[in-house]
Amino acid sequence: MKVALDVFGGDNAPAAALEGARGAKDKYKTDVLLCGNREKILAAAKKLNIDISDMEIADANGVIGMEDNPMSILKSNNDCSMAVCLKAVTNGQADACVSAGSTAALTVGGTFIVKRLKGVKRCALAALIPTQNGFFMLLDCGANAEVKPEHLLQFGVMGSAYMKNVMGIDNPRVALLNIGTEETKGTEVHKKAYELLSGAPVNFLGNIEGREMPYGVADVVVADGFSGNIAIKTYEGVSMALLKNIKGIFLKNLFTKTAALMLKGGIKELKNKTDYSTVGGAPLLGTAYPVFKAHGSSNATAFENAIKTAEKFAQTGVISQIEGKI
Amino acid sequence: MKVALDVFGGDNAPAAALEGARGAKDKYKTDVLLCGNREKILAAAKKLNIDISDMEIADANGVIGMEDNPMSILKSNNDCSMAVCLKAVTNGQADACVSAGSTAALTVGGTFIVKRLKGVKRCALAALIPTQNGFFMLLDCGANAEVKPEHLLQFGVMGSAYMKNVMGIDNPRVALLNIGTEETKGTEVHKKAYELLSGAPVNFLGNIEGREMPYGVADVVVADGFSGNIAIKTYEGVSMALLKNIKGIFLKNLFTKTAALMLKGGIKELKNKTDYSTVGGAPLLGTAYPVFKAHGSSNATAFENAIKTAEKFAQTGVISQIEGKI
Repeated sequence: MKVALDVFGGDNAPAAALEGARGAKDKYKTDVLLCGNREKILAAAKKLNIDISDMEIADANGVIGMEDNPMSILKSNNDCSMAVCLKAVTNGQADACVSAGSTAALTVGGTFIVKRLKGVKRCALAALIPTQNGFFMLLDCGANAEVKPEHLLQFGVMGSAYMKNVMGIDNPRVALLNIGTEETKGTEVHKKAYELLSGAPVNFLGNIEGREMPYGVADVVVADGFSGNIAIKTYEGVSMALLKNIKGIFLKNLFTKTAALMLKGGIKELKNKTDYSTVGGAPLLGTAYPVFKAHGSSNATAFENAIKTAEKFAQTGVISQIEGKI
Repeated sequence: MKVALDVFGGDNAPAAALEGARGAKDKYKTDVLLCGNREKILAAAKKLNIDISDMEIADANGVIGMEDNPMSILKSNNDCSMAVCLKAVTNGQADACVSAGSTAALTVGGTFIVKRLKGVKRCALAALIPTQNGFFMLLDCGANAEVKPEHLLQFGVMGSAYMKNVMGIDNPRVALLNIGTEETKGTEVHKKAYELLSGAPVNFLGNIEGREMPYGVADVVVADGFSGNIAIKTYEGVSMALLKNIKGIFLKNLFTKTAALMLKGGIKELKNKTDYSTVGGAPLLGTAYPVFKAHGSSNATAFENAIKTAEKFAQTGVISQIEGKI
């Protein structure tokens, strides 16, 4: 198995990406194909003193940035590090690809360079979100602002296959994000999706409301890309704002700083529970080959885990299982 | 000014409602019309030793529960305490009405008993949500799962008028909840709504993403009822789950309990900041007379503040201002 890595995607590129590649190779024996400008990769590795002599490089020109038009990955940016990384899976150089770069560009590139799996109507951007006791997958998180009931059905099937095979969850519980638990709730699209999911080969629990998500009551939460995006960003925003507030309370004075020290173990445990770097990121689902989105702020450990997870994504045959069910 | 109060709505009825009515009368000289079964009200007041001799009672039969069909407020439940409370504003017995009962029933009753203001296409259920430094209004929170651009425009105009007059915010900042900040983001409905809000007589900031909400960057957040409902419930759910987690850390052992004591002031301040009872609830906007929804778990203070706020809702002429702008 070989994983193509976009060396220049993410806030901490190329250092964290190279370090993560080295870690994945050493710890998991994963072969990594480094995608990006050859000279820059060699120079960075030398400067950082990271041995990449046992890794191949797929040469590229430039990097697609957050401010670039995502569609440019198909035109002016079609030989940037992310584009080369995506092409590596279609031309047989690698079995899976990983990028921490622009989510929008990766969605466009995944859909039009890697292309959709036969039968899949829409690719879905998934996210793995921490709960009290693990993670759940929310999809779609924003690739499709408007959807049809059949799209939501496919998101459920794809999410379920991923969580079972890659995350090792037996018979994943699938729920539909809606504004009430009764099957008559929501828009016409959601009512029809409820019906379709009820007859699908997944463990469908029914509707779930926003407030239930943090308690880990489902393993796969299916959403249209509009409300899925609102949900994940609200989830992130409220968590960060509250933790910031609590940090403020701790830093108030010497007295509160002492209290913070006394609570350190528990707080660290809470932070670890919700540490995205342990899963490394989330897949774009529905593509013909594995495309994996690492978190934009990935550090070396997150890259290492992203590479490992992407390898598992390829190894476990999730895509052929999705193909069989769709 | 007289405020009609549904004495039997909410988790803590009738005790908290009666106590709140007494408090509002004593503190703010607000006249309260107690709506509900006369005998039960008199018996409860006697048992609780609350003097209601200076308040009128509007007699009613029964209570509409959370499990009842909301539409039944128009038929089998049309003389329940909530229905009588709503009728009190249309027949001139009161200037505003307050209920902590079923939100769905209040939305139906508000729309069909109190009726919509001329020109208003849809009533919107608003919520006041705590942030780092105050509150913002999110509307619609679930009354309209599917909307047209003109509905979103009206939600912005109505929310702005309320926040200005009742909450005392000068030139309220209005934003549209969307999946990106650029005006080209979202569904066709959201793109068109962006355009309409840009030309409306409100201080329109543009789009806002879910993650910005907790930082109080807008005073009025306009949303379709579907994603607005997902947003508010995710907001509540994540806050509660995190605070529960932190409480768990505090209660771990004697050492952490001591630390919790040392932090007590700061934590209390954080809790007070986010205490719904200070605002008492939120309005149903778009009705011909003021309808105010108190929180389902309202205590006496929350009822007292809800009555006070509903009075202000009537006094400040928000409804005639909305009429002028629509």
